[in-house]
Amino acid sequence: MDTRIETDSFGEIPVPADRYWGAQTQRSISNFDIGRERFCMPTSIVHAFGVLKKAAALANAELGELDSGKATLIVHAAEEVFAGDLDAHFPLVVFQTGSGTQSNMNANEVIANRANELAGQPLGGKHPVHPNDDVNRGQSSNDTFPTAMHVAVVLALHRELLPPVLALRKTLTAKSHDYANVVKTGRTHLMDATPITLGQEIGSWVAQIDFALDAIEAAQIGLHELAIGGTAVGTGLNAHPRFGERCAHFIARETGQPFRVATNRFAALASHDALVSFSAALRTLAVALFKIANDVRWLASGPRTGISELQIPENEPGSSIMPGKVNPTQSEALTMVCTRVFGNDATVAFAGSQGNFQLNVYKPVIAHAVLESIRLLGDAARSFDLHCARGIAPNLPRIRDNLARNLMLVTALNRHIGYDKAAEIAKKAHKDGSTLREAALAIGHVTGEQFDRWIDPMGMTHPGNE
Amino acid sequence: MDTRIETDSFGEIPVPADRYWGAQTQRSISNFDIGRERFCMPTSIVHAFGVLKKAAALANAELGELDSGKATLIVHAAEEVFAGDLDAHFPLVVFQTGSGTQSNMNANEVIANRANELAGQPLGGKHPVHPNDDVNRGQSSNDTFPTAMHVAVVLALHRELLPPVLALRKTLTAKSHDYANVVKTGRTHLMDATPITLGQEIGSWVAQIDFALDAIEAAQIGLHELAIGGTAVGTGLNAHPRFGERCAHFIARETGQPFRVATNRFAALASHDALVSFSAALRTLAVALFKIANDVRWLASGPRTGISELQIPENEPGSSIMPGKVNPTQSEALTMVCTRVFGNDATVAFAGSQGNFQLNVYKPVIAHAVLESIRLLGDAARSFDLHCARGIAPNLPRIRDNLARNLMLVTALNRHIGYDKAAEIAKKAHKDGSTLREAALAIGHVTGEQFDRWIDPMGMTHPGNE
Amino acid sequence: MDTRIETDSFGEIPVPADRYWGAQTQRSISNFDIGRERFCMPTSIVHAFGVLKKAAALANAELGELDSGKATLIVHAAEEVFAGDLDAHFPLVVFQTGSGTQSNMNANEVIANRANELAGQPLGGKHPVHPNDDVNRGQSSNDTFPTAMHVAVVLALHRELLPPVLALRKTLTAKSHDYANVVKTGRTHLMDATPITLGQEIGSWVAQIDFALDAIEAAQIGLHELAIGGTAVGTGLNAHPRFGERCAHFIARETGQPFRVATNRFAALASHDALVSFSAALRTLAVALFKIANDVRWLASGPRTGISELQIPENEPGSSIMPGKVNPTQSEALTMVCTRVFGNDATVAFAGSQGNFQLNVYKPVIAHAVLESIRLLGDAARSFDLHCARGIAPNLPRIRDNLARNLMLVTALNRHIGYDKAAEIAKKAHKDGSTLREAALAIGHVTGEQFDRWIDPMGMTHPGNE
Amino acid sequence: MDTRIETDSFGEIPVPADRYWGAQTQRSISNFDIGRERFCMPTSIVHAFGVLKKAAALANAELGELDSGKATLIVHAAEEVFAGDLDAHFPLVVFQTGSGTQSNMNANEVIANRANELAGQPLGGKHPVHPNDDVNRGQSSNDTFPTAMHVAVVLALHRELLPPVLALRKTLTAKSHDYANVVKTGRTHLMDATPITLGQEIGSWVAQIDFALDAIEAAQIGLHELAIGGTAVGTGLNAHPRFGERCAHFIARETGQPFRVATNRFAALASHDALVSFSAALRTLAVALFKIANDVRWLASGPRTGISELQIPENEPGSSIMPGKVNPTQSEALTMVCTRVFGNDATVAFAGSQGNFQLNVYKPVIAHAVLESIRLLGDAARSFDLHCARGIAPNLPRIRDNLARNLMLVTALNRHIGYDKAAEIAKKAHKDGSTLREAALAIGHVTGEQFDRWIDPMGMTHPGNE
Repeated sequence: MDTRIETDSFGEIPVPADRYWGAQTQRSISNFDIGRERFCMPTSIVHAFGVLKKAAALANAELGELDSGKATLIVHAAEEVFAGDLDAHFPLVVFQTGSGTQSNMNANEVIANRANELAGQPLGGKHPVHPNDDVNRGQSSNDTFPTAMHVAVVLALHRELLPPVLALRKTLTAKSHDYANVVKTGRTHLMDATPITLGQEIGSWVAQIDFALDAIEAAQIGLHELAIGGTAVGTGLNAHPRFGERCAHFIARETGQPFRVATNRFAALASHDALVSFSAALRTLAVALFKIANDVRWLASGPRTGISELQIPENEPGSSIMPGKVNPTQSEALTMVCTRVFGNDATVAFAGSQGNFQLNVYKPVIAHAVLESIRLLGDAARSFDLHCARGIAPNLPRIRDNLARNLMLVTALNRHIGYDKAAEIAKKAHKDGSTLREAALAIGHVTGEQFDRWIDPMGMTHPGNE
Repeated sequence: MDTRIETDSFGEIPVPADRYWGAQTQRSISNFDIGRERFCMPTSIVHAFGVLKKAAALANAELGELDSGKATLIVHAAEEVFAGDLDAHFPLVVFQTGSGTQSNMNANEVIANRANELAGQPLGGKHPVHPNDDVNRGQSSNDTFPTAMHVAVVLALHRELLPPVLALRKTLTAKSHDYANVVKTGRTHLMDATPITLGQEIGSWVAQIDFALDAIEAAQIGLHELAIGGTAVGTGLNAHPRFGERCAHFIARETGQPFRVATNRFAALASHDALVSFSAALRTLAVALFKIANDVRWLASGPRTGISELQIPENEPGSSIMPGKVNPTQSEALTMVCTRVFGNDATVAFAGSQGNFQLNVYKPVIAHAVLESIRLLGDAARSFDLHCARGIAPNLPRIRDNLARNLMLVTALNRHIGYDKAAEIAKKAHKDGSTLREAALAIGHVTGEQFDRWIDPMGMTHPGNE
Repeated sequence: MDTRIETDSFGEIPVPADRYWGAQTQRSISNFDIGRERFCMPTSIVHAFGVLKKAAALANAELGELDSGKATLIVHAAEEVFAGDLDAHFPLVVFQTGSGTQSNMNANEVIANRANELAGQPLGGKHPVHPNDDVNRGQSSNDTFPTAMHVAVVLALHRELLPPVLALRKTLTAKSHDYANVVKTGRTHLMDATPITLGQEIGSWVAQIDFALDAIEAAQIGLHELAIGGTAVGTGLNAHPRFGERCAHFIARETGQPFRVATNRFAALASHDALVSFSAALRTLAVALFKIANDVRWLASGPRTGISELQIPENEPGSSIMPGKVNPTQSEALTMVCTRVFGNDATVAFAGSQGNFQLNVYKPVIAHAVLESIRLLGDAARSFDLHCARGIAPNLPRIRDNLARNLMLVTALNRHIGYDKAAEIAKKAHKDGSTLREAALAIGHVTGEQFDRWIDPMGMTHPGNE
Repeated sequence: MDTRIETDSFGEIPVPADRYWGAQTQRSISNFDIGRERFCMPTSIVHAFGVLKKAAALANAELGELDSGKATLIVHAAEEVFAGDLDAHFPLVVFQTGSGTQSNMNANEVIANRANELAGQPLGGKHPVHPNDDVNRGQSSNDTFPTAMHVAVVLALHRELLPPVLALRKTLTAKSHDYANVVKTGRTHLMDATPITLGQEIGSWVAQIDFALDAIEAAQIGLHELAIGGTAVGTGLNAHPRFGERCAHFIARETGQPFRVATNRFAALASHDALVSFSAALRTLAVALFKIANDVRWLASGPRTGISELQIPENEPGSSIMPGKVNPTQSEALTMVCTRVFGNDATVAFAGSQGNFQLNVYKPVIAHAVLESIRLLGDAARSFDLHCARGIAPNLPRIRDNLARNLMLVTALNRHIGYDKAAEIAKKAHKDGSTLREAALAIGHVTGEQFDRWIDPMGMTHPGNE
């Protein structure tokens, strides 16, 4: 492999000649060979460093901290990082230093080398652009990495999670309208209960998604606060006093998201409570989707000896041994994702509790876990929407049959004959295997005419319209 | 034991003569002998049932669903429940039916019997007030229990958690002002870092508490939504169409909290996402307190071979074998509570994911865990405030000595001589065991006069004031 | 309240005259008012301190470290603690110092005062028996509290958990034999699958319980190792070199459990990995019981629109609004307990990871959580056994009907006509709503005679007997 | 892209011409676009399918279920899968059907096509080797996937986890011997405590690793039990009665691990308690490593204002802004991995609890999480060993200085003057800032000669040798 020499305060080290990274990145590659294939630092973090370093150069230039020539070079190189053009130059893994310093230096080194190349200078020379003194000017890993974490998560939320979840919500909302008049058995404790419409049942799923989206929206606010400007410990040492504010301004401008400087930059380095809260909001979404996916597969269970009130798309053969078997595989993939989101959230909360003094050194694992949850929930929601939810349809004969046999229709009699007599009827029907009407008339608490008037399943689902 | 006979749809059963509860409560005592001493249904749930049943009677009377005589009796008895006067009549445990039906019936039975007693009628007669037809009128366990959960949690939050946490916040805020001018070593990665004031350090703890309180406030909004009016499956069957709204109105009036009827009552029975979110907010507070308590004990570690920059109150002998030992016991109690809150949150999220169809049947365990976290966090915050935080004081000689030896003061030279030369100085001092100034002058990158001007620890903590 | 004066190294403090505890216990009461009612130190820990202090006195006497007169007095008092006679003298809560020092001192103080009382001396005089120098002789809280933790957990396991779980296992084993010949629909992915006997289905629950019991048994081994003899940091300073071994011997003799001194006493103070592992084994049991309870309630779901293949006891009215409704409440209580055990395990593992240097200071919260899981699992298993499992019975008509309609019986044709043709038959029957036999004959892959010979549901459940 | 047509019971579908997979694999690619890059099915599962399918062919051939020509072809192709030569033909992701059916079919399809290619037949023709009837003969996804899970995990344990953990153990054991005579301050509650040797301190880390390895060893036993032979629901339908046993025999022979057929094959499909237990054992290892990594970084904290008793390798610049800063980055990477292992374990336990009837459909997410934990713990242990543990050395001047100032040496006086007088001495020294000796003599409880004889730090670490 062709190499060149790069240097840092530890001395010289050869790096691949065709890579922009420098000495500290190279050391990290050697020192942290942990989970290499699956745990490379997420590209969304890399891209967030791109926009951050661009914004920092613009802010420093505006404040007179960086000459405009260097700033132009840095901006150019940083835009390439933001655009994803230099992803191959970010080889580090998640399990490195807990401050993410090595990924910050990776960005500094790549941008410096690329900028110097643009300036016609050799790689490794740190001239005219120095990775620490120029690209990292007014910054520390301790404020840039958490800034990149927030930027990456907010952008991923808007790109990867919200669109598919909103699409699924739209599908379910349409279904809840389509089936507003399908009256069916309600179920509580898994047992037959008073009737409900399929529209109401699906509508409750939409309500859960809406609640989760509200929780995500509320939790997102904490992510708009950026640590930038705090530098090493939160004091802002070596940064222009207005640097953080201006840098956040440029990040907001570039991304279209309302980023601003953190209220307390000390806390923004020492803790990641905003991400802990945000992770919990993702978990709330997972809780909602878990319930929805479970309801779908139970309602579609069968085809002959289950509940079978819903039909869902048959997408593939379900069994390698049972011919003709079809399974609710989209529900399975989605609920598996939810268990993963629960685990990621446990990781984030644990890691989030372990800060000491001026720094929490679990930054990369927190960022990675949150980004993974976003990605998986988004992908799984899209898959579930496309391959399952859109094809949900009621099995009307089964629904009607189940409803007709449901003893809990008796509840409508409470208002007329009281709970105790109504119970007597239901228990007799259950014991005899008879219909409610037969039992009611046999006991004599109601007449046939009264029974038929009072037991109105559709009316029971909309008592407000009585 | 003296008994009387009570009845329900299962038949007759003897209950203690001096208790107001009825048949269903008695059956639950027999059927659920699980964790009896420590897992009795929280009294805050019982009291919430008190206010709920009062509000329901008022709403039903207003809407013409209940005659005013019965309503007056129910209101009287329900007020006694709300006031805690009848706690001894609520013997059930948390691990009962997952809908909390038995505790709802416990409330219905106690209120009916007490109401009938007030009316001069014998216990057990269900006359004039019937537990189901009157006390439970327009209600189901499926909407009353989740309503009681939300009411109990909101009231406990305001009574048990917010006051002590705000008091601790006040203590820490005062300390952060008191020690605004105490410059000390910052620490990142547990290693010496650039300086910070003790006021800033403590201020970051306040910022974490503020963030957590904001998260709790945001999560509380979901708890203001009450399931009441949904009855058995969310449709509101057997309730007057305006019952839920009027009942929520009376609950709000009685409690002074902005309760209102849930946006989607189907979801309010089938899921507990609002409590899952709220539990996560409590966990965020636990994350913050964990960091704070850890910082306090590490900064106070020693007395001679630790960091020893803080002094904390010495409250008791610390060891049964090591004479004179004193330990940071309040930090220990608080962090132990935090691990418990993490566990409770895991319980709540797991249970919250397990709803099926129209009901989540993990209601009591969710309510109990959230209420436990509230109580423990409140108690531990108060204890930590009273017995530790208020007595925090800087160990000034140690702080000054540590600061003077801190090599990371070199960072202030970056702006003048660049990162690389500054690193050279720091590394030389580290290697030689010399002071920074000695190393700087030996290398010659700066003059003594420059060094003394540029290395200004207090200035480094407020670079904006340069 | 009548008081007397007690003293410790912090000075004098009044304590209730009718209590045996001393100054340090009294300070803890004042300093740790956290979760008082529900989080008193478990009596099983108190009793374990009783046997431990007795064993310590016997060991010290044997080794010449304590004169026999004092030893006799200590043994007498410690036996009263072990027997539970002095529970009222142990008022402390779980959330105290993380070493449990205050509970160790509570034991030392109570035993010393009681011993001195037996010797005709006044309480508070520390003569002839001194709480530290005599009762705590050769001990530190750092080795006694973890010793008490292990002793308490092992005894609770044998008293509270194993008997009810073994009883449940026995019930299920009998059921699996009773229903060895009931052939029914198997279900995978919630969908109809090849047949299974009810005996096999229940037998798989027994197998899960057996696996969990094996895991508990394996994890228990780590609990037999006692920290005693390590004193303050593991070195055994101030204890006779053979003290730990002799003390463990006497504890084993008194309890009948194979306790022995820990292999590495440093680790036994600094970590609680044995309890973390044991908690995980309890979680494995919870996983098994969760599956079992879920299967039971799903198989019993209905009564008319669910699966309804099992009948379970009807123990109480299930609804306050739906007359005649009966619910699978024992499954609900048991699964709620399981979610709590999951949460407790999360607490234990988190707390277990937080040791520093020579001590883990999360001892009380770990002990409490493990003991709570033991108690709840035991109680819930007993309740589920008595009130549900013993009454499980097949709903034979429903089972037969479901089996007859199950299309997956087609799987038996694979060996005769291959998977692809068998799939063709099943898919046709599914599409047409016809029986398998009708579809098979219509397509012509088999004759009626072949079909009847090859499709033998009972034979399909025991292919080894073909 | 060049394609060919493959078929399954759903019909025709084009697949890439240069890939061996068939119709069902192709459908899964389309239907499950979830987390594609990072969540491809682990190759260790793919390779386990290789050895499993080889063993199945050998067993079927031996039992007369498969003709030897087909068996030879299958064995040849399966060996290529086992060897990793066909990894590029396994494109599926983890989040697919919860039974892993699609990955089982991926293996069946690849092996069938490759076998047919070896036989000179075209791909897609299912002749002479049929993916279901031949490669999957006597098998179902429901028994093969859990079999592959266990095989993959056991092999990964031996290849990826045990070697680096044992290497780390060896390093630490050597260090504990090297520093057996370095007496230093012990610390409990983070506070100065009685002395300990550095060898004892490091030895306690070794003891924790040993405990965890024992737990892993014990948990591994459950993984040796294979579901194979159970086919669809555990009955073994369509498999030769001895197939499972023979197949397990061949897997054991090929892998050198003591695999055997599961005691209860119904439970082996319906639950994954063995993996839940095994995951918990990995968590125990994470708990141990978390403590060790924390101790290392705290003991190495400084360099000037921390504890600084240990020196650890300086591997890279620690800060982008603080020149000369070096951080305990290997501890950080390792503890981050541990938080991830905690999260993975939460996923596994949750997923493991969610089985229904004859199948747990969270198989792929469980397998993935356990394999990820193995890999990460192994990689991180190796990294920590190579880049940190091997370079640990005591900072002797600091250790001596800290020990000399440690007031808890007073504990050695207990045996001579009693706890109360010893406390008096320690408290006076603490208050005055004097040495223990000065305080002791000032009070007069001991003479200087007694003090010097009784206070022997090294002796205090080995009281058994007195």
